[in-house]
Amino acid sequence: MNGADLICKTLIASGIEVCFANPGTSELHLVAGMERRADLRCVLGLFEGVVTGAADGYGRMTDKPAATLLHLGPGLGNGLANLHNARRAATPIVNIVGDHASHHLPFDAPLTSDIESLARPMSNWYGRVDSVHHIVPTVADACRAATSLPGIATLVVPAEVTWSDADPVQPPSIADIRPVSPSAPDADKERRAAALLRRGRSTALFLGGRALRQEALAHAAEIAGKTGASLLSPFANARMARGAGRPVVPRVAYATDRAVAQLQQFDAIVMIDARPPVAFFAHPGMPSQLLRGDCEVLELCEPGGDAAAALASLAEHFASTPFLLDPPPPPLVRTGQQDLSQGALTNEVLAELITRMLPDGAIVCDEALSSVPQLFAASHDAAPHDWLQITGGSIGIGIPLATGAAIACPDRKVITLQADGSGMYTLQGLWTQAHERLDAITIVLANRKYALLIDEMRRMGVKPPEHQVRSSFDLTDPVLDWVYLANGMGVEAVRVSSAKEFTNAFTVALMRRGPFLIEAVLA
Amino acid sequence: MNGADLICKTLIASGIEVCFANPGTSELHLVAGMERRADLRCVLGLFEGVVTGAADGYGRMTDKPAATLLHLGPGLGNGLANLHNARRAATPIVNIVGDHASHHLPFDAPLTSDIESLARPMSNWYGRVDSVHHIVPTVADACRAATSLPGIATLVVPAEVTWSDADPVQPPSIADIRPVSPSAPDADKERRAAALLRRGRSTALFLGGRALRQEALAHAAEIAGKTGASLLSPFANARMARGAGRPVVPRVAYATDRAVAQLQQFDAIVMIDARPPVAFFAHPGMPSQLLRGDCEVLELCEPGGDAAAALASLAEHFASTPFLLDPPPPPLVRTGQQDLSQGALTNEVLAELITRMLPDGAIVCDEALSSVPQLFAASHDAAPHDWLQITGGSIGIGIPLATGAAIACPDRKVITLQADGSGMYTLQGLWTQAHERLDAITIVLANRKYALLIDEMRRMGVKPPEHQVRSSFDLTDPVLDWVYLANGMGVEAVRVSSAKEFTNAFTVALMRRGPFLIEAVLA
Repeated sequence: MNGADLICKTLIASGIEVCFANPGTSELHLVAGMERRADLRCVLGLFEGVVTGAADGYGRMTDKPAATLLHLGPGLGNGLANLHNARRAATPIVNIVGDHASHHLPFDAPLTSDIESLARPMSNWYGRVDSVHHIVPTVADACRAATSLPGIATLVVPAEVTWSDADPVQPPSIADIRPVSPSAPDADKERRAAALLRRGRSTALFLGGRALRQEALAHAAEIAGKTGASLLSPFANARMARGAGRPVVPRVAYATDRAVAQLQQFDAIVMIDARPPVAFFAHPGMPSQLLRGDCEVLELCEPGGDAAAALASLAEHFASTPFLLDPPPPPLVRTGQQDLSQGALTNEVLAELITRMLPDGAIVCDEALSSVPQLFAASHDAAPHDWLQITGGSIGIGIPLATGAAIACPDRKVITLQADGSGMYTLQGLWTQAHERLDAITIVLANRKYALLIDEMRRMGVKPPEHQVRSSFDLTDPVLDWVYLANGMGVEAVRVSSAKEFTNAFTVALMRRGPFLIEAVLA
Repeated sequence: MNGADLICKTLIASGIEVCFANPGTSELHLVAGMERRADLRCVLGLFEGVVTGAADGYGRMTDKPAATLLHLGPGLGNGLANLHNARRAATPIVNIVGDHASHHLPFDAPLTSDIESLARPMSNWYGRVDSVHHIVPTVADACRAATSLPGIATLVVPAEVTWSDADPVQPPSIADIRPVSPSAPDADKERRAAALLRRGRSTALFLGGRALRQEALAHAAEIAGKTGASLLSPFANARMARGAGRPVVPRVAYATDRAVAQLQQFDAIVMIDARPPVAFFAHPGMPSQLLRGDCEVLELCEPGGDAAAALASLAEHFASTPFLLDPPPPPLVRTGQQDLSQGALTNEVLAELITRMLPDGAIVCDEALSSVPQLFAASHDAAPHDWLQITGGSIGIGIPLATGAAIACPDRKVITLQADGSGMYTLQGLWTQAHERLDAITIVLANRKYALLIDEMRRMGVKPPEHQVRSSFDLTDPVLDWVYLANGMGVEAVRVSSAKEFTNAFTVALMRRGPFLIEAVLA
């Protein structure tokens, strides 16, 4: 057994079942080690941003880490943007980066770089296997860190460790590696939260992270129904259980002025697995903090804590409290009333059509950005689904995230709402969807511009100068043809530009299995 | 005038004419500032790896920096791999990274990250504009550093600096910013080099960096012709003047064992703008250093020094020395003898066809990797051309490098030899080629696998296990269709799979202007 075999054995003992990989020469022994293990599925990405984004999607849907396999500093560099998103989503990932053999580093060969400096900003844990004799503890530590933080554990593996002979040490069993149980709910904070909620001032339960899963949400909805508190969530969330039968949780608005107005009403806010909301970007003369200055902030459950337990325990304080109104009946799944099939494909129509047609148990990967802003609100009474967002603002996550979610949940339909500009960053993920026969539908929302940036420019009052013949943010010269792009990577695709065409295409896509792309040209 | 205007004014005063950009909200004032200047050309890339790779190509062909414009830490992350290559090529680049407004950083908004930690490994210089009052000295310093090192100067610009009112300070004139003249040739080293060359032992002139430009090469060839020294260059070079009428300079082999054998003959080596050759990767039981242990190494001109002056000065020592043989006549441009048009499109045939058809003054961007290894040797007597390589081993440079070279040299034909696997990393560059109507031909060498890695696996003796149904490095399931991919980004393309088809396609591509892609399916 060589070091690579022992690394694979330790990963598997730690519960790792999937490795998303884009390896190079320095990782070949690891690849060979993985190929020798039928119980470690290796999924190839043609670009590292696909690899890290897929690991994010997998981790969000399974709550356990996938491994990645990246090629030295530059390969890590290509994967950083989606690691950034994954870190903001608190997704568990064991991010493995190969390095030159240690004895080769002093010679500064072409691919040498300071991997630690590159990795630290996007890692919650960093380690390096410094010897073949330290494989088991170091790899197990990385898995434990990724699972229990949860977050990004970057593990650097120098090549000589993988090719050296290794003693067949027994890795710790998965029971030793499972997440540390989050601390029990804090009784004092809980009493203060209950008191706040009884006081009758305008209060929000601010639900982030795992507070947006089904069980936690049910407790939150009960508390809200009995106290009059509002439910609210951050603008961007890793995974939210939504749809008919589930509570409706609005999100803080993206635009700073709208968010400030939205939060103005709250005298107090109880944070559950969330941080106080801040502006996405700074703007001249606008605040960074969005809550009212005198808003009382109580953190009931810290980020990464056991949100469901905290909310269940808080709900017990209100066990005998009656609902203020009869508990609202859970919304029914919206079905079509008005016939939309003859009209233009506007944002509103697309939002309504997707809402009506969304299949039960769908996983929605939302990188729609400025496209179809109506969709999130509209789909609160779609069939029950999970909604995954871009959490770190680093665009190019949609297709990779869907790829990982589809690997994690082969029996659920994955539907990606993909803005065209951001889709171009990691379009290579479509190949992996074809290669792995993933049941993923990508809806490209083709507005053919960086609409978000054009809007922001307009808000700044910038007018194009006379000499300028085209906008810096126009994507019409040439137009991107997503049908060709998808076909080029083996994914079937159609372009639609009317409500009827979209309905037909989405109907067919939902009936078949396997990857499919719909380029929706918006009116 | 706001800070963004003053930044643009300083860049322009420092000689910057082009900015390759992929900006976001935090860089919008800078974009608006650039749009107000007709004398600063802004070139949009749809992915940051395109932006940094294009800046590399531009810098290699002009010997002056382009600016980049990247969006915070994640945008920088996406650009790091090609910055790594550019740093290894000693290309001047003013790498501008926008950041949140300084007052917004403490709130850890979603896109916040440690930009300095990400930037340092791929930067020769790092700075941050800490106030609107320090714009001129800081930006000018960045431009001076990029030009004089030469290398990557990363300049972080917080958003509030760009939107604040700025005093219209006069930036230093370009004369103050031009590169520091490299130090004069070192007379002592020169005498020692001359003595070495006279000693009659087997000696190589090891030519890197700017020693591979036409003028320096002519001096080197004269010295070699009079002393019997060999000419040699590193495996990977930023830019090499080649073709008929120019000296033939072999490169050190990629494979460690072949490189060691190749360098075995040398008793001494004189380094001109180069570092001693080292193995690209470590392999079990193989050395990192490639020269014989007792090989005498003399550094005549340090990396970044004035290679042409050093070689001219050294050549004067041999002014009265006769050529050992009559100086060999410069090779003539190879023209077709044997009719190849009826055969299969093998590596050898493709190398011969490209050599015969290469137009005068072509710029060849070589990311062929394992494809067509015959081409470099074959093309020594092609029409005069410049040959640009991937210098840092970080794949995904070909299409971006060509994009920047074509912006730099609109009157020269740019021809990219692009392996298919690595082409997928930054294929988005094709859109910029179409958007800017660049005269660039991409030849995709479609072997439909990560051939380099498959070869390395074989060398390691790894056999696929029984349960494995396909190779980890096979790209045939599905096959990438480069004609669709190019068409999807507005670039015309054809697929060829015979010598005759290639000849026809390349003939047509050379006759027209504008981007074109040929997918060459190798026999």
